[in-house]
Amino acid sequence: MNSEDCIFCKIAAGEIPAVKIWENDSAVAFLDIAPVSDGHTLIVSKQHYKTLDECPPEYLAKMLSEVGKIAKAVTEAVDSEGYNFLCNNGRAAGQLVDHLHFHIIPRNQGDGILKGWPSSEYPEGRAEEIAEKIKKNL
Amino acid sequence: MNSEDCIFCKIAAGEIPAVKIWENDSAVAFLDIAPVSDGHTLIVSKQHYKTLDECPPEYLAKMLSEVGKIAKAVTEAVDSEGYNFLCNNGRAAGQLVDHLHFHIIPRNQGDGILKGWPSSEYPEGRAEEIAEKIKKNL
Repeated sequence: MNSEDCIFCKIAAGEIPAVKIWENDSAVAFLDIAPVSDGHTLIVSKQHYKTLDECPPEYLAKMLSEVGKIAKAVTEAVDSEGYNFLCNNGRAAGQLVDHLHFHIIPRNQGDGILKGWPSSEYPEGRAEEIAEKIKKNL
Repeated sequence: MNSEDCIFCKIAAGEIPAVKIWENDSAVAFLDIAPVSDGHTLIVSKQHYKTLDECPPEYLAKMLSEVGKIAKAVTEAVDSEGYNFLCNNGRAAGQLVDHLHFHIIPRNQGDGILKGWPSSEYPEGRAEEIAEKIKKNL
């Protein structure tokens, strides 16, 4: 998908309507039209990047510096107990639109959202082995 | 919990060991000891903030500008198909340690992680009503 066919590019450009709540030079925030909870908000880059790792550091810093303020405003508006800040990257991770976006999802106890946290333990030495590979990539 | 009793403050200060992969002035990244998938990484603020909305914008920008690079290094190291970037805020949202931290969770199809996305639709006018409340809070 290139940026001409991208629904989030069109929303960021004002070519498709959305219920916007905030914007700056780098990003726009609006309510998700298929919310998993009341107030579910998307923060979308104005520039087209597919994923978090495609976005340059300076751009990401400008895009995200105010997300705490936005999250607080959202969760207070819907009086939720907590919230998730989430960015899915790739189909296997639940990304449905190939344009960088962050979710703010208001949460309440027992709401059934984002279940599945199958935590385990590493066998001896495995964590250090993975860490060495990661550090070589950095 | 104050910062003296905080396990992530102690890891950031080097008082408790962790398998670290990266750090800068504001944050440290290490492998989660109870991973939900191989390479599951935490990015933790060096300063003690409880949640995302307690963290000042400038600090957050410094903390997050390089997360794309870290996510790419992690997912390449474990050869995953995708990844989630996630910050849980409050018990209702799954936050277990009261110190600001972001998860990078490598993902593969069918891994059963973070299921539960009960998307719905707003009744007419409800989205606009919520958006007005949010904008008053900003």
